[in-house]
Amino acid sequence: MTNEQLRIGLIGTGRIGKVHAANIAALPETTLTWVIDPYIAGAEAIAAERGARATADPAEAFASGDLDAVVIASPTSTHADLIERAIAAGIPVLCEKPIDLDIARVDKLAPVVEGSGVPFAVGFNRRFDRDFSLARERLIAGEVGDLEQLAIISRDPAPPTVENLRTTGGMFRDQTIHDFDMARYFAPDIVEVFATGSQLFDDGAKQTSDFDTAMVTMRTSTGVQISITNSRHSSIGYDQRIEIFGGEGMLEVGNAGTSLVSYSNATAVKTTTPYQHFFLERYAEAYLEELREFSRLVRGEESRCSTFADGRAALLLADAAELSAREGRVVRVDLDR
Amino acid sequence: MTNEQLRIGLIGTGRIGKVHAANIAALPETTLTWVIDPYIAGAEAIAAERGARATADPAEAFASGDLDAVVIASPTSTHADLIERAIAAGIPVLCEKPIDLDIARVDKLAPVVEGSGVPFAVGFNRRFDRDFSLARERLIAGEVGDLEQLAIISRDPAPPTVENLRTTGGMFRDQTIHDFDMARYFAPDIVEVFATGSQLFDDGAKQTSDFDTAMVTMRTSTGVQISITNSRHSSIGYDQRIEIFGGEGMLEVGNAGTSLVSYSNATAVKTTTPYQHFFLERYAEAYLEELREFSRLVRGEESRCSTFADGRAALLLADAAELSAREGRVVRVDLDR
Amino acid sequence: MTNEQLRIGLIGTGRIGKVHAANIAALPETTLTWVIDPYIAGAEAIAAERGARATADPAEAFASGDLDAVVIASPTSTHADLIERAIAAGIPVLCEKPIDLDIARVDKLAPVVEGSGVPFAVGFNRRFDRDFSLARERLIAGEVGDLEQLAIISRDPAPPTVENLRTTGGMFRDQTIHDFDMARYFAPDIVEVFATGSQLFDDGAKQTSDFDTAMVTMRTSTGVQISITNSRHSSIGYDQRIEIFGGEGMLEVGNAGTSLVSYSNATAVKTTTPYQHFFLERYAEAYLEELREFSRLVRGEESRCSTFADGRAALLLADAAELSAREGRVVRVDLDR
Amino acid sequence: MTNEQLRIGLIGTGRIGKVHAANIAALPETTLTWVIDPYIAGAEAIAAERGARATADPAEAFASGDLDAVVIASPTSTHADLIERAIAAGIPVLCEKPIDLDIARVDKLAPVVEGSGVPFAVGFNRRFDRDFSLARERLIAGEVGDLEQLAIISRDPAPPTVENLRTTGGMFRDQTIHDFDMARYFAPDIVEVFATGSQLFDDGAKQTSDFDTAMVTMRTSTGVQISITNSRHSSIGYDQRIEIFGGEGMLEVGNAGTSLVSYSNATAVKTTTPYQHFFLERYAEAYLEELREFSRLVRGEESRCSTFADGRAALLLADAAELSAREGRVVRVDLDR
Repeated sequence: MTNEQLRIGLIGTGRIGKVHAANIAALPETTLTWVIDPYIAGAEAIAAERGARATADPAEAFASGDLDAVVIASPTSTHADLIERAIAAGIPVLCEKPIDLDIARVDKLAPVVEGSGVPFAVGFNRRFDRDFSLARERLIAGEVGDLEQLAIISRDPAPPTVENLRTTGGMFRDQTIHDFDMARYFAPDIVEVFATGSQLFDDGAKQTSDFDTAMVTMRTSTGVQISITNSRHSSIGYDQRIEIFGGEGMLEVGNAGTSLVSYSNATAVKTTTPYQHFFLERYAEAYLEELREFSRLVRGEESRCSTFADGRAALLLADAAELSAREGRVVRVDLDR
Repeated sequence: MTNEQLRIGLIGTGRIGKVHAANIAALPETTLTWVIDPYIAGAEAIAAERGARATADPAEAFASGDLDAVVIASPTSTHADLIERAIAAGIPVLCEKPIDLDIARVDKLAPVVEGSGVPFAVGFNRRFDRDFSLARERLIAGEVGDLEQLAIISRDPAPPTVENLRTTGGMFRDQTIHDFDMARYFAPDIVEVFATGSQLFDDGAKQTSDFDTAMVTMRTSTGVQISITNSRHSSIGYDQRIEIFGGEGMLEVGNAGTSLVSYSNATAVKTTTPYQHFFLERYAEAYLEELREFSRLVRGEESRCSTFADGRAALLLADAAELSAREGRVVRVDLDR
Repeated sequence: MTNEQLRIGLIGTGRIGKVHAANIAALPETTLTWVIDPYIAGAEAIAAERGARATADPAEAFASGDLDAVVIASPTSTHADLIERAIAAGIPVLCEKPIDLDIARVDKLAPVVEGSGVPFAVGFNRRFDRDFSLARERLIAGEVGDLEQLAIISRDPAPPTVENLRTTGGMFRDQTIHDFDMARYFAPDIVEVFATGSQLFDDGAKQTSDFDTAMVTMRTSTGVQISITNSRHSSIGYDQRIEIFGGEGMLEVGNAGTSLVSYSNATAVKTTTPYQHFFLERYAEAYLEELREFSRLVRGEESRCSTFADGRAALLLADAAELSAREGRVVRVDLDR
Repeated sequence: MTNEQLRIGLIGTGRIGKVHAANIAALPETTLTWVIDPYIAGAEAIAAERGARATADPAEAFASGDLDAVVIASPTSTHADLIERAIAAGIPVLCEKPIDLDIARVDKLAPVVEGSGVPFAVGFNRRFDRDFSLARERLIAGEVGDLEQLAIISRDPAPPTVENLRTTGGMFRDQTIHDFDMARYFAPDIVEVFATGSQLFDDGAKQTSDFDTAMVTMRTSTGVQISITNSRHSSIGYDQRIEIFGGEGMLEVGNAGTSLVSYSNATAVKTTTPYQHFFLERYAEAYLEELREFSRLVRGEESRCSTFADGRAALLLADAAELSAREGRVVRVDLDR
């Protein structure tokens, strides 16, 4: 398989599905062969555009002999079943986060996936971001000395609709889960979680008893401290920053601007244009890189893909945060369980 | 008194005492008449330099008829007694933080000070910092809309000596207390505190069962969230930043550099010189402004000075943080008690 | 033709030719049908990769009936002839700068091109740069008031080889010509040129009696002042900045970095990673946009493409700079002749 | 004299005179003993405030036996005479720039001053600016390799009154003269000058046949290139920047801001408050440092003060610029004459 294009099937044709479809078509090492969605019109439209086949039934694609791997980008509630079926068919999987909203379901799935020997990756796209990766490399290279404090600031431009909110499993499992994974990317050994959440501006959050504003503090077993600052809205654009503080220095990843132009006048100087709007802009390259790495994983090469255990750990941290915020106390976690 | 210089006595001749002595001499509206310290040689040296009188006994100065106010910059353990004696003598007081390390002692002192009608101020110098003040004015002016999240980053260049640590009452009452006051400067109505502390690098912290690294999360009654990030060391210089995030924008106060020079070469661009070293540089102007405001307070004019209640509130928050860090749970506070 | 892909032939298969080939293939509105180069192996390689036909003879492609336009990216000495032949065949042309190194040849070509009615554009890619375009829009929108001073800083990473230098017509006609066009992009009405050149570091410049370091000062008829600062090398990466100073403000276009990561330690703070290396990175998007605009021009739509007159004006300014630098005096130019 | 305060007389009580008076009073190593001004009321006011004596007649102060040095801050037209008289009386002089507007007068004065052995300094305050000094040290230390290009941007907030303009000797001798000195501070060996000036916005400039906007290009004997960009107005505040470009890197001195606060909202991010208004703010510390260095010069210690030859060289460059701008050609200068 090494010298041929990886034949990939895409399950799910929403916003992220379309990103994956374009990327699978764009990379020289991958080609899109199947688009799978019960909403068959959506599948057919993308399939036509990319020269793939469409089906409402995953089984058809899995059995076609024309599929080396699948990317699952369907609604969260369908992930676990689809993973199970793909793994059973021996088809490698890249699944969008989260694996499932229910840790019990995830725990049941774990031995199935991990015992199968079939390549599996969770889509934590930020790990493939050029800047976060570079910062991590420089941390590992010792540029800041020992890590002492990590701050992750992550604010979305605007809250999801209330319909959407009902399916997310709450802010911690939906938005913060990316930051939990980022925290583990820099400091894997997390043992304690404290979280607080507020309803400050979003009616949808109130209607769904969810939060729109959150802060999380975590610790590793050696006492390294991690803070996550989240908001469901951000008037200044997509706010995605990390500060990595160590005994000998600090690394910072800043926001991505939309131009190199700055403006000064009598009342304000060095005004720059707004930050990029959202993840589709900020992480466009990261999604491509994720697919490259998944392609390596499927080919049996060394790969930086997130594992099933990474997906489970992020959900465990989200569950812990939810419990902590509800009960006002530190929650201990055992991510190695 | 309005058109004459305010005659000020200084109690304590350590590092901060010397700053106050120079400032009292420099301001046109104040003059230094007494320097008071049981270590009489220290008092005499400063008195000689500034044309003041020296004494080891506060009573001598209080009774001299040559004193309109005192600045207390002696060790913390002496603050409460000196405040009591000055107030009894009808002498207005500017006292360095904290009032005392023991909230019970502070609570006993409260009615004495507040019932006396004698002007009293606590020395939370950062409130007089040009940049924090400006950011607060712009918050109040509505530039970010409603406040939602406040982040205070505050790292000292290096830990105190272990001897010094033994007298501080712990990191939260010594270092973080400034940040608790800053938090209330922007968001007064704090009701919940969570804190976590680590011993990561300082032997002194270990020997005194203190922390050298801390994170604090607080909430106001309306759900505004506040984070404080502290370290007892910072290789990059004095790290003193604030981020004020609201529904319509963000205000940031950055670090103060030591030059306007930046340098670029083949491996790194826009390298700037280190941040200012410590509070003596960063808050030099703030100490002057604090004294100006204290002078207004003594003259019965409108003043921005911190009150006794401000001093008590910061200590209450420090106590709550200590308790929270030791017990791993949210601690509720009632600052209006 | 409006709803179909524009069939484009590429002449020249060097560094820039390859960029155009990839862009013609990537844009939905264009397709590569011919690759033309006397070095037929180069043409065949690109043609094979992109599904086009290869030939050493432009006439074959011009006569094929399978060509709506050509992009000329061959050596400068061939430009004028190729333009003449394409125009004679009624084929629209996008020609890389410069049209020719000899203004007499350009002047002879002018009526041929301009009288033909066949669409023609010169490839001044920087006009299509997102940031320079945005700055110009904001200048035109009046954000800085009347333009008073324009500063263009433009430094390449490293000098060309001496062989290459022998064919360039000198630094002003090779490197500065882009800046002359940028100057006219912001301030078209230039009437005076002063230039100075030095040989500071490049042996090739010495061997070819060329310069490696230059400064140019120009004026418009109303007294607006323009400075260009050039170097053939830049250890800090590709240095491409513009400052637009007017009576009511200033617009600045800064350099493009290679990451969002900054680093601080005890000796230096906010160190960022180097600037992008050269034009292929900095102007990648601009080349795509140029092709989009050329496609509009060919389709008879409104287009921002540089005209033959723009190409001639930049060469006139380069000639004037050369004369000025050699004679140490202001040279007046009439770009409207 | 080394251990006693230097007794200084101040001649001239205008804006700069007042700065010097305050600085002489503030420095521990200097004391103000005389204030000299034909406008005796001005002299008396400052003398009273600072505990000095006032006179309209320099001779009285020179003969008083109570004067170790003078600072000349009177109108330019009086400088040469006052220098002559002070030097004749053996009194060391710090004279504000320029020495005189007429190079012939300066040349006549040169042997008088230089032959006298009496310490003499010209007040080019920017040489004492912390940031320009630091940049120069780093240039000399080799951080950018060999200097190749130097860019000085210098814009005042607003033009002088027309009355004031009539006495300045023109923009080059009044404003640019500081930049000519800065150019020599970094690249002393200047041999060629080209200048261009415009009347773009200031009626006063038109009425006095002066310029309000200027660009100057200069070269050293080895081909190092220097650009100066000047404007008589700047809506963004005092614009005082230097870029030092060499073979191995670049040093930049940026503008001085008025706060550490930045602001971001939906339309613009990282907006900072305006630059400092003018030289009194930007160079406040530099004036103090200049006086310290002058004090060293008078005491016979090593000093960084500008010499008479520095004052003459800056005027020669201004004269050359004026000639160049009027005649449209390069003017060669011999600063070592």
